[in-house]
Amino acid sequence: MGIQLKNKAMEVALKIKKLGQDDPRRIIHSIKVGVALTLVSLFYYWKPLYDGFGASGIWAVITVVVIFEFTVGATLSKGLNRGLGTMLAGALGVGVDYLANLSGQKGEPFVLGIFVFLIAASATFSRFFPGIKARYDYGVLIFILTFSMVSVSGYRVDEFLTMAHQRLTTILVGGAICIIISIVVCPVWAGETLHNSIISNINKLANYLEGFGGEYFHSSDEHVTVPEKDKSFLQEYKVVLNSKSTEDSMANFARWEPRHGNFGFRHPWKHYLKIGSFARQCAYHIEALNFHLSPHQLQEPSQFRRMMEVPCKTISSESGKALKALATAMKTMTDPSPSSQLHLNAAKSAVNDLKNTLKSGTAQISDDISNLLAIIPDATVASILIDIVKSVEDLSEAVAELSLKAKFKSVSPEKPQLLHKGTIKPFVEEDDNEAQQQPHVVITVSGIENNNNNEDLPVNKK
Amino acid sequence: MGIQLKNKAMEVALKIKKLGQDDPRRIIHSIKVGVALTLVSLFYYWKPLYDGFGASGIWAVITVVVIFEFTVGATLSKGLNRGLGTMLAGALGVGVDYLANLSGQKGEPFVLGIFVFLIAASATFSRFFPGIKARYDYGVLIFILTFSMVSVSGYRVDEFLTMAHQRLTTILVGGAICIIISIVVCPVWAGETLHNSIISNINKLANYLEGFGGEYFHSSDEHVTVPEKDKSFLQEYKVVLNSKSTEDSMANFARWEPRHGNFGFRHPWKHYLKIGSFARQCAYHIEALNFHLSPHQLQEPSQFRRMMEVPCKTISSESGKALKALATAMKTMTDPSPSSQLHLNAAKSAVNDLKNTLKSGTAQISDDISNLLAIIPDATVASILIDIVKSVEDLSEAVAELSLKAKFKSVSPEKPQLLHKGTIKPFVEEDDNEAQQQPHVVITVSGIENNNNNEDLPVNKK
Repeated sequence: MGIQLKNKAMEVALKIKKLGQDDPRRIIHSIKVGVALTLVSLFYYWKPLYDGFGASGIWAVITVVVIFEFTVGATLSKGLNRGLGTMLAGALGVGVDYLANLSGQKGEPFVLGIFVFLIAASATFSRFFPGIKARYDYGVLIFILTFSMVSVSGYRVDEFLTMAHQRLTTILVGGAICIIISIVVCPVWAGETLHNSIISNINKLANYLEGFGGEYFHSSDEHVTVPEKDKSFLQEYKVVLNSKSTEDSMANFARWEPRHGNFGFRHPWKHYLKIGSFARQCAYHIEALNFHLSPHQLQEPSQFRRMMEVPCKTISSESGKALKALATAMKTMTDPSPSSQLHLNAAKSAVNDLKNTLKSGTAQISDDISNLLAIIPDATVASILIDIVKSVEDLSEAVAELSLKAKFKSVSPEKPQLLHKGTIKPFVEEDDNEAQQQPHVVITVSGIENNNNNEDLPVNKK
Repeated sequence: MGIQLKNKAMEVALKIKKLGQDDPRRIIHSIKVGVALTLVSLFYYWKPLYDGFGASGIWAVITVVVIFEFTVGATLSKGLNRGLGTMLAGALGVGVDYLANLSGQKGEPFVLGIFVFLIAASATFSRFFPGIKARYDYGVLIFILTFSMVSVSGYRVDEFLTMAHQRLTTILVGGAICIIISIVVCPVWAGETLHNSIISNINKLANYLEGFGGEYFHSSDEHVTVPEKDKSFLQEYKVVLNSKSTEDSMANFARWEPRHGNFGFRHPWKHYLKIGSFARQCAYHIEALNFHLSPHQLQEPSQFRRMMEVPCKTISSESGKALKALATAMKTMTDPSPSSQLHLNAAKSAVNDLKNTLKSGTAQISDDISNLLAIIPDATVASILIDIVKSVEDLSEAVAELSLKAKFKSVSPEKPQLLHKGTIKPFVEEDDNEAQQQPHVVITVSGIENNNNNEDLPVNKK
């Protein structure tokens, strides 16, 4: 029994350690909350303050507990929502209370009841609007709360003003302590987190594509057994599939955040959602590809598979490298076009090689082709790889658009790029999904010297 | 200007109407919140109650505003979390206060400060544990809040007991009003919502598959132009792709809910997540399929496409029908096997037809086959359709497992099924993703009379 308890305790301790190691910002956040709460407790102990505010000091404590969130954006969003909701509802509550007073001792409860019902019901309904839910949900909650409290408790106006002043001040103090601590001490920016998580997602897709060729065509060129732990890249892309809800909320919080690091106040956070959705699109293709990496597919390769091995490997690895280049460009906040375009072009020319091989190569494998069934899995892999190049192209356009909107630096002069690969794409986008199905006309202009001018970057003409 | 304002108002009015029409439960919920809040306001007006509780009555108002959520499960979860958090923190707060008192006038603030810091920081950290975050996040928040309030405000123990009694009673009354109204008046059950949303998702996948054949092979057999609006089924499946976060939270709330409708208290809600994940898997395949429905694919069909038209159409429509049967079985809570297995078997035999055609049929189209590139898109569609049958089979097994766990009715005697299609599947599942890649051994036993016995249903042996 004692040993079991000890084991259980050890297990919990290990879990705590892992949770902290995975993201040390969690430990720092917990300490920050503790410090903020201890600071506002001083309201009760520092005599001059207590004399001024009395019992209202408790609102500072409540405010800190309720609004201090993990990211700066979430804290700001909750703080501003709380402040705004409280003030609006306070003013409305006093007004309604005044009206109710006019209707006499007997009528007052009815008038108040009707107003509470109407305002609570309509404010609750407003929380179903997606736009309000995303940004002002907490503010509406606080609005209902404060309105009910003020109108119901029936303060006289002068009483109310004293109390409102005390409460608002303590709420402001509590909110200010949260916001200052959350910004000054090791801040966790929602925007930066979104930026990094999109980069890490693109890297995961890239790792898969860079490794896929070796895995799929494994039996034909490498006979060395790779240790199991190195295969994690084959599973990592799966987190991208379900990344939407996290990205949506991060982008919402990021919009409340002030300038930080390399991100300005009006950084195009919404555009990250577009990049995220293209990354998911790419992940769906990879999911289809991964389905063909099951053990029974990895038999002795047919002539057909050997025929398409070289172009397919090139498509996969160059697409992966293009994604890596996009991720690096986002990380360093530089113009992504030169490096990613190079790999994208290599992937595209491998697609052409593959197509030519397939068009003309039947003669080489005429003995094999009588059985169409045998070539279907390999043909599917080839087809998905071609689709992946399209989706990497979409992603690359979206990143290029971001680089324009967010004014990324042009490539640094330390690494002169002699060739500027400009692309002009007449690309009418009606709908994200339709757009991907439309054939793209791509004109590649090579041989023009890089003039560090952003004007001729690829842009989606909307 | 006046007209613009009028237009704006009209627009908002239309939005409100649409929001209400899309889900009338939203309007009812708003009214329920209004009624609950008006009821607790009575605490201030009904003299005997006010005399008993005094200012603590405000806690009933706060409780209603904060815990009344859209679904019964969410309301119960918040209510229980609030109650539990308050009580635990209250007890701990009094204990700490007592300890702090022992350390004298000067030491008290320090002891209290240290305790507030330690408990707030560790409780905040505990919110990062996924298990606590999912079920007890709000409870921990309330715990920190109450603990800080109680320990900081420094009540004497007897004072505290009176106040705790008043507050807990009003919180209980507020919570009880919320829970009763949310359960009695048109309840919105998280469990039922999860159940229905999974059914509707499966139906969306089914609609796509039933319609796909007609769309893809359109030019060869139908020349009637279908009106645009009828094509919505080609987009609807996309909501399934991002369904994970909603399903996760619904399943969490459902676990708090009492028996309702056909769902017992221990209904296997967690198993719905498994079904949901298989449905997403199927949606990923459909996404890959949909990529091949772009306009340039729909040219004059090649000989090769004509050759595989019949089996492919059968695979697609029978898979769709199998999914429809699964959805219907879930809706009526009956054993899904007889009806879905029938269609699944038809789809599987069409897969065999397709494979045989591909194995032997090269001679028929020998003039066409020299250009392998031309057949790749069609070959890919065939391959994805074969993958889809596998994924429908996984989904069907998961639903059969649910039917066993949740004790679904065997098929009703009004519609006697003479043939019982039992399947025995030796299917060792190590990992959801790996399992799908393993070849399944399927033994279909036909011709045994239906004995209304659930024992021989397909089960995943874990």
